[in-house]
Amino acid sequence: MPEMNNTSGQYRGKGGLPKVVVIGAGFAGLWLTKKLSGKPLEVVLVDKTNYHTFLPLLYQAAAAEVEPESIAYPIRSIIRKMPNVRFIMADIKEINYEERLVIANDITIDYDFLVIAIGSATQFFDTPGTEEYAFQLKNLEHAIMLRSQILRCFEKAMVEKNDDARRKYLTFTVIGGGATGVEFAGALAELIYGPLKKDFPSIDFQEVKIYLIEAASGVLLTYPNHLREYTVNSLRQMGVNVILETFVTHITVETVHLKDKGVIPTETVVWTAGVRGAPIAEKWGLPITRSGRIEVLQTLQLEKYSEIYVIGDLAAVMANDNKHHLPMLAPVATQQGSWAATNILRQINKKPPLPFKYLDKGTMVTIGRKKAIAMVGKRTFNGFIAWVMWLFIHLYNLIGFKNRLMVLVNWANDYIFYEKSIRLILPYKRSSIIKKQLLEQLLKEEKK
Amino acid sequence: MPEMNNTSGQYRGKGGLPKVVVIGAGFAGLWLTKKLSGKPLEVVLVDKTNYHTFLPLLYQAAAAEVEPESIAYPIRSIIRKMPNVRFIMADIKEINYEERLVIANDITIDYDFLVIAIGSATQFFDTPGTEEYAFQLKNLEHAIMLRSQILRCFEKAMVEKNDDARRKYLTFTVIGGGATGVEFAGALAELIYGPLKKDFPSIDFQEVKIYLIEAASGVLLTYPNHLREYTVNSLRQMGVNVILETFVTHITVETVHLKDKGVIPTETVVWTAGVRGAPIAEKWGLPITRSGRIEVLQTLQLEKYSEIYVIGDLAAVMANDNKHHLPMLAPVATQQGSWAATNILRQINKKPPLPFKYLDKGTMVTIGRKKAIAMVGKRTFNGFIAWVMWLFIHLYNLIGFKNRLMVLVNWANDYIFYEKSIRLILPYKRSSIIKKQLLEQLLKEEKK
Repeated sequence: MPEMNNTSGQYRGKGGLPKVVVIGAGFAGLWLTKKLSGKPLEVVLVDKTNYHTFLPLLYQAAAAEVEPESIAYPIRSIIRKMPNVRFIMADIKEINYEERLVIANDITIDYDFLVIAIGSATQFFDTPGTEEYAFQLKNLEHAIMLRSQILRCFEKAMVEKNDDARRKYLTFTVIGGGATGVEFAGALAELIYGPLKKDFPSIDFQEVKIYLIEAASGVLLTYPNHLREYTVNSLRQMGVNVILETFVTHITVETVHLKDKGVIPTETVVWTAGVRGAPIAEKWGLPITRSGRIEVLQTLQLEKYSEIYVIGDLAAVMANDNKHHLPMLAPVATQQGSWAATNILRQINKKPPLPFKYLDKGTMVTIGRKKAIAMVGKRTFNGFIAWVMWLFIHLYNLIGFKNRLMVLVNWANDYIFYEKSIRLILPYKRSSIIKKQLLEQLLKEEKK
Repeated sequence: MPEMNNTSGQYRGKGGLPKVVVIGAGFAGLWLTKKLSGKPLEVVLVDKTNYHTFLPLLYQAAAAEVEPESIAYPIRSIIRKMPNVRFIMADIKEINYEERLVIANDITIDYDFLVIAIGSATQFFDTPGTEEYAFQLKNLEHAIMLRSQILRCFEKAMVEKNDDARRKYLTFTVIGGGATGVEFAGALAELIYGPLKKDFPSIDFQEVKIYLIEAASGVLLTYPNHLREYTVNSLRQMGVNVILETFVTHITVETVHLKDKGVIPTETVVWTAGVRGAPIAEKWGLPITRSGRIEVLQTLQLEKYSEIYVIGDLAAVMANDNKHHLPMLAPVATQQGSWAATNILRQINKKPPLPFKYLDKGTMVTIGRKKAIAMVGKRTFNGFIAWVMWLFIHLYNLIGFKNRLMVLVNWANDYIFYEKSIRLILPYKRSSIIKKQLLEQLLKEEKK
C-alpha cells in the first residue's frame, strides 16, 4: 500500500518499488492496470470520475435501451482485489516532466512511469453552432442528457399547437455516418417507432423525422460495399432519412444548415461526425497530430520520455500496414493497455520494449433489432447472425456479473415486449439548453 | 381519445363525458387514475415529471442500494392500457376555479372534476441555513444528489491532508428520527461500514461519524416503546450516533449547531425532520392548515368546491379516531386515491360522496439487513421476521415486473456479496454545492 506523505501530499512508493501512475480508467488504462495487478510495482490509477464507462453501449443508454448505471462500474470495485493498485479520483491539470509529477487541484502524485490514457473527445471541425447546440455521445452524462432531450421533445410536441414548432420538436438530426451515428440513428428509430409510438397515441408520427447526415457517398467507410449498402437500406426501412454527400455548414438553436441541400428545422442535433484526442493533452505540451492525438513510438512510448506511455484513443499508433493510424476502438485500447503493461515490466527488467502489433479480431456495428454487420478477417456477416454475435460479445465484455444481468434483463425486456422502460426525463441542464430556454422566453415576450 | 383544440390549446371531453383532471402522479393520483380506467369519463393525468417514483425506497437510492431508475417508472407505460386516460407533462401554475381551468405555461386544461394530489415537501421550520445547505429526501433528484455527495466526500477525504477538513468530509448528520431519518441512517451505516470500508482501505474508519439527531426522547414516536428501543439499539450497534432530546438551532456550510449539545463539523447534512404540504397549494388560494396541508371534508372534497378533491400527503384528513390527521404515508394515499375515484363516480351517478375511512393494514420501518420493525393492528414484530415482511411487501408493490426484477437483483447482490455496486458520482450540482465550492475557492485564494 502506498503511503501518503502528509507534508507534501505526494504518494511515495513503498519499499522502493517502481511506481506507475495511470491517468484514465477507460479500456486502455483499466486493461493496463489489470495486467500490472500483483506485479512487483505500485500502480496509482487516476480518473475524473469514480466509474468506468462501457462506451460501446453508450448509444443504447442515450436511446433509453439500457440503464446508464448498467454500463458504468465503480472503479474501486474493479481494483479491490488488486493489492498493489490504488485509485484516486482527481482531475489532472498539469504534468511536470522533469520532476516526474502529475498535478491536480488537491493532490500531486510522483511517478516512475506515467501512462496517459485519457481517451478522445468530440471533433467539431470548428463548425459554427455545434459546440453550443449539438448533443454529443462521448460520456455517460452526454447519454443521459440526450435521452432526456428526446423524451422532453415528445412531451413538448404533444401540447404544441403551432405546426412548425411541433415538427421541430419531432425532428431528430444525427450528423455523421460512422459507427456511433449509425448505431444511434438505428436505436433512436426503434425507440421512436416502438415504445414512443405507443406512448404518444395523439401525436401524428407522419410528422416525426429522423435524419442521418453523412458527407461521404456512404456510411461506415471502412466496411465493404455490400455491408454499407445493407446498412443504409436497413436504416431507411427503419424510418431513418439517410442523406449522403453533403455536410453541415452551421447549426443554430433550431436549424441544421446543409451544403447545397437546404435547411432542417430541428430541436435535436447529435454530432457524431468527428473524434479527436482529448484536448487537454495539448496543454500538457505533448506532440499532437492533426487529429488531436499524440505521436508515440511503436512501443507506445513518447519519443522524448521513455518512461511515459500513451495508449488508447489518444495515441496515434501505426497500424500493421504502416500506412494508417489505428482507429479509436475498444479492442485497440485494451490490447494497447496490456501491451504497455508488458513493456513497462520489460523496462523494469532491463529488456527493450517491443513494438505494438494489433490483432484484429474483427469489427461490428449494430443497426437495430436483428440487424447488424460484422467483419472478421475477410469474412463478413450481416443480419440476424451478426446481431447475435454482437449481442454476445458485448454482453460478455461488460464488466461485472451484476451489470451483465441488468443489461440482459433490459434486452430481454426489449426483445420480448418491444418495450423500453427507461424513459425518465431527468433534470439535467446544459448551458445550451438554458440558453435555448432563455431565447425562447425572450422570443415569446417579444411577440407579446 | 380527447381532442386538442388547436386555437385555444384546451382539451375538451369527447362525446360530453365528464372530464377529470388529476394533478400529480404519485401514489394518490395514480391509484385514483387506475380506478377510473375504463369508466365512462375522461381522465387527464398531469405531472411535472414523466415518471412515477416509488418513494418508500427513495432512501435506498440515496444510499446506493438500488438504482434510481428501478424505483421510477414512466407514467406513459403505466397508463398505456387505460383507453380513457391521457397524460400531460406540465407544471401547473394556476387554477381558475370559476372557469374550471388548470393553467401551465404551455397549456390550459379545463375540468369537470379536479383532483389535487401534488404531495408534500420538506418542512425546514425556518431553521437558518437548512434550505441552503441541507440535503433533502423527497424526490429522485434529491436521492441522486445525496448519493453523489456521500461518495464524493469519501473521495475527497482520501486525499485531504488536513485532519479537521478530512473529518468534516467523513461526518454525516441526519436530522430527524422519523421513518425516513431512521431508514436512511441505517442504510448509510451499511453502505459506509460495508462496501465503502472495502473501497477505501487507506481511510481510518475511526474518523467516520454518522449522527442521527432527534428532538424527542426517542425515535419513531408512533411506535410502541419496545420497538423504539430496539430501533435505537440497532442503530447504535450499526455505528450510528443517536443523539436525542436536542434540536438544530442552525446550520452553516460546514457545521450543525445543536441546542445545548454543541456543534458538529460536517460536510453532509440530511434534513428529514419535517414534512409539509406542497407549498404551491398556498399560492392556489386553498385553505391551508398549520402543517401546510389542505383542509378537506371527510369525503376528500373541498368545502367550497364540491368538484375538487384533495388526496394524499397534501390532504389534511381526519383519522378514524377523529382526533388526529392521517399521517403522510403511501397506504393512506393509495386508499384515498381509490376512495376519491369512487366518490367522483358516485357524484356522476347523483349519489352523495361517502366519508373516507382508512383501513390500517400496518406500518413498518426497516433499519438494516435483517433488522426492521412492524406493527399490524396490536401485533408487533421486530428483527428478521419484520425485515422479510418489509422486503416482500415493498417488492410486491413496486410497479412493473422489470423493476421488481432489477431491485431483486440489487438486493440479492447486496445480501449475498455485502456489496453495493451503484456507486457512481454523477455530476449533479445544486446551488448550495456551487456556492460551497465558490466559498472554498475564495478561502483558498485568500490563504495565498
